[in-house]
Amino acid sequence: MLLDEGGHRSATVRRANLSSIARELHARGPLSRSELVARTGLTRSAIRGLIGEFVSAGLVAEERSEPLGVPGRPSARVEPDPEGAVVLSLAIAVDSLGAALVGFGGTILDLVRVDRRPERSSVEEIADDLLALVSRLDGWSAAGPRILGVGVAVVGVVRRADGFVSMAPNLGWRDVPLGDALARTLDPGLPITVANEADLSALAELRRGVAIGGDDIVFISGEVGVGGGLIVDGKPLTGVAGYGGEVGHIPVNPDGVECRCGSIGCWETEIGEGTLLRLAGHPPDGGREAVDAVLREADAGVASAMAALEHVGHWLGIGLAGLVNVLDPRLIVLGGRFGRMYPYVVATVERELDRRALAAPRELVRIVPSALGIDAPLLGAAELAFEPFLAGPATWLPSRSEIPGRAGA
Amino acid sequence: MLLDEGGHRSATVRRANLSSIARELHARGPLSRSELVARTGLTRSAIRGLIGEFVSAGLVAEERSEPLGVPGRPSARVEPDPEGAVVLSLAIAVDSLGAALVGFGGTILDLVRVDRRPERSSVEEIADDLLALVSRLDGWSAAGPRILGVGVAVVGVVRRADGFVSMAPNLGWRDVPLGDALARTLDPGLPITVANEADLSALAELRRGVAIGGDDIVFISGEVGVGGGLIVDGKPLTGVAGYGGEVGHIPVNPDGVECRCGSIGCWETEIGEGTLLRLAGHPPDGGREAVDAVLREADAGVASAMAALEHVGHWLGIGLAGLVNVLDPRLIVLGGRFGRMYPYVVATVERELDRRALAAPRELVRIVPSALGIDAPLLGAAELAFEPFLAGPATWLPSRSEIPGRAGA
Repeated sequence: MLLDEGGHRSATVRRANLSSIARELHARGPLSRSELVARTGLTRSAIRGLIGEFVSAGLVAEERSEPLGVPGRPSARVEPDPEGAVVLSLAIAVDSLGAALVGFGGTILDLVRVDRRPERSSVEEIADDLLALVSRLDGWSAAGPRILGVGVAVVGVVRRADGFVSMAPNLGWRDVPLGDALARTLDPGLPITVANEADLSALAELRRGVAIGGDDIVFISGEVGVGGGLIVDGKPLTGVAGYGGEVGHIPVNPDGVECRCGSIGCWETEIGEGTLLRLAGHPPDGGREAVDAVLREADAGVASAMAALEHVGHWLGIGLAGLVNVLDPRLIVLGGRFGRMYPYVVATVERELDRRALAAPRELVRIVPSALGIDAPLLGAAELAFEPFLAGPATWLPSRSEIPGRAGA
Repeated sequence: MLLDEGGHRSATVRRANLSSIARELHARGPLSRSELVARTGLTRSAIRGLIGEFVSAGLVAEERSEPLGVPGRPSARVEPDPEGAVVLSLAIAVDSLGAALVGFGGTILDLVRVDRRPERSSVEEIADDLLALVSRLDGWSAAGPRILGVGVAVVGVVRRADGFVSMAPNLGWRDVPLGDALARTLDPGLPITVANEADLSALAELRRGVAIGGDDIVFISGEVGVGGGLIVDGKPLTGVAGYGGEVGHIPVNPDGVECRCGSIGCWETEIGEGTLLRLAGHPPDGGREAVDAVLREADAGVASAMAALEHVGHWLGIGLAGLVNVLDPRLIVLGGRFGRMYPYVVATVERELDRRALAAPRELVRIVPSALGIDAPLLGAAELAFEPFLAGPATWLPSRSEIPGRAGA
């Protein structure tokens, strides 16, 4: 949006400037007015006026800092109020369901998680289970009118526009209208956005985790399936319809075994949890506990466990080499089970990258474990739900009763 | 860059608005003032003033359109002058060198190309050959002060910052300072930008070819090597240092043959020209003419030629399935030799995508041949060279003698 040279469009400018302030406060937490001036490029007087709007709306508290003995007036400290604007985030993993209330500034107000057996459930059953979980969140009933929206992370291939899950083999889902089902079950006035859990984990690591402020990031997560979240030039890669980042289904072994997606030799068939467990002599559906058992066996020098981890590291490296050559990333983040396996596989992965990635991008990339671990999908879902507010906080400011999409609330 | 609410920064606004107009005229050619108003969001009076600056600088001609019998004053027609701002573009392919002068609005003023034997040449030899080629361009000597810069496309892995080629196996190059060598050989005052030829071909198809205005595009080109150019959310994917898009080195066949990059079973080893020719019973270094011979043999029903094309189509489909799952693109553009092979391989490619890509992104993607063919790298290099001007035309406007970086010209 450009502005004309005569009278500029003040409503548009105001909206952009409010958004800029909201993003800084949400990303970084409390800031002084001087820091806001430096970070947004706005004038001191503009900052003062705009902060006033946030304060009136109960979104921000402002307090004068203690003088530090430096000359001049101390700069007022501007603090986002986590209770002033809240989102609900939900996560559907293969073996657990999670729910959290997250406040402005990224504060986790409450978080609950329950195990679920990795058996097939209908979307209605899962929606009901999530509703039960939500009701256990401290502050949920009180948060009512301050809830901006709902973000949902799911282990599946998701169409962003309406939260339609075209495929989630590890939930037994194909063509499931998850967004619609949740809208019926939850408060119908709340805007709901659904995305893939690995995409959201990558977003969470970018905003709150090991990749803060990063530009080009490959996030790989895995439990039963293998997912990826890609950050390109600082923004999540979604593709045309939000299906991007399904790295688990890159063909890596044309002579490999059949994948649940219907193809053959997908990356997931070589590095997925089932393969690790089978090679280590455990039942392939043993889940998180069985993976931990394999890691303990490797610590104790059990050959089958070490060979299984070597296999996963080998194929992890092969697939990552392709992604390094395609994306030239700065950082590879191993998340989910791969985060736990990191110390056991990183040497093998590095060796395969040395062999198979082009020297120039290879030299630039580092491999690190996820910082957020199992909470990454929930935190990413919260970021997703905050996005409309951060992009246009003006809509929420003038009169808090006129929140769009909350007519039915 | 945001503007404050009080006095907005008029220099910044002016620069952004001039850029917006320059981009529209460069991308679309002649436009009426009304169309510029609609496309830029600027007011009619702002457009009038800004166009005046372009006219004064000799970059744009403005003429009143013929009345069309519709009421009201006819809107003036604004036309970029191709001779008003010119870039030099150069392309280093395995079997040819090319040079072109391209004018504002994308007009090719002249283009020359010479075959080169696919033998190894030093960077100095190639720079000299390019200089000889440039001197044959009509209008080169006269264009002098109106040359904005030089864009260079090369079949190699390029660091964008300084045009350093870390690897171009098909030229026999490793760690070659191409940017520096060209700066020494050409007019030393000209800014030179170097990028990978497939990346630039993708950019050309996005701006001038089969993918105009597209958002998510996978461009694959091949001759001896296989390159890729990726457009993500409307912008070229470069990665951290410009090495992105090296799809030819995705590992697709762990039991495959050694690749010139040092790895094993890269995509290039299965779909590169050498493999096609070898399988079809031709010398693998036969080049473009030998590929054409294979296509003629396939037309005549020669079994070895058909089997070779089937092999390439099969592996092309496998690799593209991975890219579809990772990137969720709208369009796959087959360029270079693959553009010529398109009618012979498209059915096989589509079949492999059906088998191996996830259903949801598979349904959205179309496969098309390149529209620009062999000219794509040169046209993309021209776009690269135009970029600083399009981003900040203000720098070139106030006084044409103060062109930055032309001190030595």
